[in-house]
Amino acid sequence: MELSHRKVNKRVRFTDTQGNPLSGQEIRIQQKNHAFLFGCGGFVFIPHVLKGEEGYQEITDSWLDVFNYATLPFYWGNFEPEEGSPKTDDLMKTAKYLTDRNVRVKGHPLCWHTVCADWLMKYDNQTILNKQLERIDREVKGFQGVIDMWDVINEVVIMPIFDKYDNAVTRICKEKGRVGLIKTVFERAHAANPEAVLLLNDFNTSIDYEILVDGCLNAGVPITAIGIQSHQHQGYWGKEKLLEVLDRFSHFGLPIHFTENTLISGDIMPAYIEDLNDWQVDSWPSTPEGEERQTREVEEMYRILFSHPLVEAITSWDYRDGAWLKAPSGFIREDNTKKPAYEMLKKLIKQEWWTDTTVTTDENGFAVVEAFKGDYTVSCLDKKADAAFTDDKEMTLAI
Amino acid sequence: MELSHRKVNKRVRFTDTQGNPLSGQEIRIQQKNHAFLFGCGGFVFIPHVLKGEEGYQEITDSWLDVFNYATLPFYWGNFEPEEGSPKTDDLMKTAKYLTDRNVRVKGHPLCWHTVCADWLMKYDNQTILNKQLERIDREVKGFQGVIDMWDVINEVVIMPIFDKYDNAVTRICKEKGRVGLIKTVFERAHAANPEAVLLLNDFNTSIDYEILVDGCLNAGVPITAIGIQSHQHQGYWGKEKLLEVLDRFSHFGLPIHFTENTLISGDIMPAYIEDLNDWQVDSWPSTPEGEERQTREVEEMYRILFSHPLVEAITSWDYRDGAWLKAPSGFIREDNTKKPAYEMLKKLIKQEWWTDTTVTTDENGFAVVEAFKGDYTVSCLDKKADAAFTDDKEMTLAI
Repeated sequence: MELSHRKVNKRVRFTDTQGNPLSGQEIRIQQKNHAFLFGCGGFVFIPHVLKGEEGYQEITDSWLDVFNYATLPFYWGNFEPEEGSPKTDDLMKTAKYLTDRNVRVKGHPLCWHTVCADWLMKYDNQTILNKQLERIDREVKGFQGVIDMWDVINEVVIMPIFDKYDNAVTRICKEKGRVGLIKTVFERAHAANPEAVLLLNDFNTSIDYEILVDGCLNAGVPITAIGIQSHQHQGYWGKEKLLEVLDRFSHFGLPIHFTENTLISGDIMPAYIEDLNDWQVDSWPSTPEGEERQTREVEEMYRILFSHPLVEAITSWDYRDGAWLKAPSGFIREDNTKKPAYEMLKKLIKQEWWTDTTVTTDENGFAVVEAFKGDYTVSCLDKKADAAFTDDKEMTLAI
Repeated sequence: MELSHRKVNKRVRFTDTQGNPLSGQEIRIQQKNHAFLFGCGGFVFIPHVLKGEEGYQEITDSWLDVFNYATLPFYWGNFEPEEGSPKTDDLMKTAKYLTDRNVRVKGHPLCWHTVCADWLMKYDNQTILNKQLERIDREVKGFQGVIDMWDVINEVVIMPIFDKYDNAVTRICKEKGRVGLIKTVFERAHAANPEAVLLLNDFNTSIDYEILVDGCLNAGVPITAIGIQSHQHQGYWGKEKLLEVLDRFSHFGLPIHFTENTLISGDIMPAYIEDLNDWQVDSWPSTPEGEERQTREVEEMYRILFSHPLVEAITSWDYRDGAWLKAPSGFIREDNTKKPAYEMLKKLIKQEWWTDTTVTTDENGFAVVEAFKGDYTVSCLDKKADAAFTDDKEMTLAI
């Protein structure tokens, strides 16, 4: 697969700190981080950071060995179970713990009909909307500089017709319409932090979502990236569907984020289940055959997505088996042992798509660096410098 | 069913032409036309007007006895089979013939991937788009005052993924996206005639079309009315679906036009046919049972639609059996005899929903007029005047 878009190919002039060219020197180029966002649910960092228990250390350590991007939960009903008492401190501590470790953090989600705050339902629609917008303002401004990436609104295709139970967000979506609500919440989020990356996110990948995105963009909604969920509890989409979805959502020319990916290593959920949440089982074991299959599917999927120029993030949802729906959906098992998919993905991210090389400068200190886009430590003899390689423009680097 | 929204209930002061009140007089209120648009395909008027043959007279006479609104064909491929030679004169003569008989005319459609002009395909996309916009400008301006109502763009949900054959409009829709193309063609039509009623029209009544309309309105597309096709060759939708569609498309608050209605009086087309045009038969007879069923279904549907406050037009597609798909879809048979659905609909439109009454004025010339909205002849003794009753505001009327 063609990966040139993931790499730089740039002429660099290496100098010492006085600006003298490092002529005829060996320069070591060691990658520290990817520009591409290799993400995973970061929910487990919350108890780890807050309770500091040993049990979590093993989990978070192996997480940090592979991923550079975490999704943290901002479900309104959990984040602010009682009006006026948001768990801002807990989330802030956890987010900072992650950013201190060079992990980019996304907040998920600011507006959604599921896990919505029940206390909202006592208000009229105008008040609900006002509180929704104030909530967006509070989180986006409050976390600015730590979390600058948000799933602004989740699953809007179904939002106004969601009928499993009454909730405040479905009410306001019914009244304002899909595009009207999206526009309003995005505008508030954008005003709160004009630099933030703002995503629309949906599990619906049909023409419905395509038309919704089309309408939003024509209505001037400041969407930075298109979020696509891909929970595959009912079986791997396969290459053909994956390419077809990419093709359709590429027309907009916006970055695409695979925001919630699941591939399981156990029995497949039956196809007749329409809402994944309806599949409630006592246990859902990971099997050796399932783990092989999961590894193959994760590999194929990541290779396809990484090779697509518009994809800039892939987030696998559960890090550990037995989380959502008790599914064997993780990279580690419930006993924290690593599954083959973990080892395979780590190899892809930290070896095959990773740069650790040496170049030799010419008499003027120039060398051509070919490297995966990201952050680097560059060293010459006993000197070191940090560098970010993100494009092909010629640069000068003092070591 | 509640029909008060279809009627006026207004206090009218009747005077003579000098302004003296007509005190204690009987005033005859005779309806001449409906404000509601009872439409039908008006294609048959073209050969009638152009060729003037006797054979058409019988057809057009019975048409004019019932309907006040005609759809005329502006399919680009037929209207301008060779670039630069549009059939403007033919359509203008026909349209004027109809407006002279108090029939409102709609042009259908200005942009569509089907029956598109083949000669467009030799151009690049930018040129195709320019020619599409020039075409809109030419027709909307050229027919202004005669045709001030247009199906601007047809069947956009499927437009960019239509793959039965290559055509110029699918090409530009693929490139601009659905909402982008809709916005561009509507803006041109609106600029060409700011007073025109401009419709978006689709056979897709699913959530796809709902989201498309939502997106367009939020993007500022000047849609005057939502057009809904309801070709029911595969069986009557039924009351439940009809109400459900009305409910969903009412959320926008815009007028709704049922633009292309078909209910047949013969065998039902099998459900497995996806594109109605794939059902090609040698003959498709009208049957006595079918005619009974058609009459019942037409009646139920018209009663539901007429009772819905946002519906302002219903157009039945074929006037005569054996037209599109050879279906028994008309109000008259192929031998021009009237079907029971014709008689039933004429009774609804010209009797049950029609006002012909007498009021008696008080000493100051006042009387309360309760009448279906529309145009009237108002007479007192041997004097007559024209009046339009469209709202409940008090008015003075000189006879």
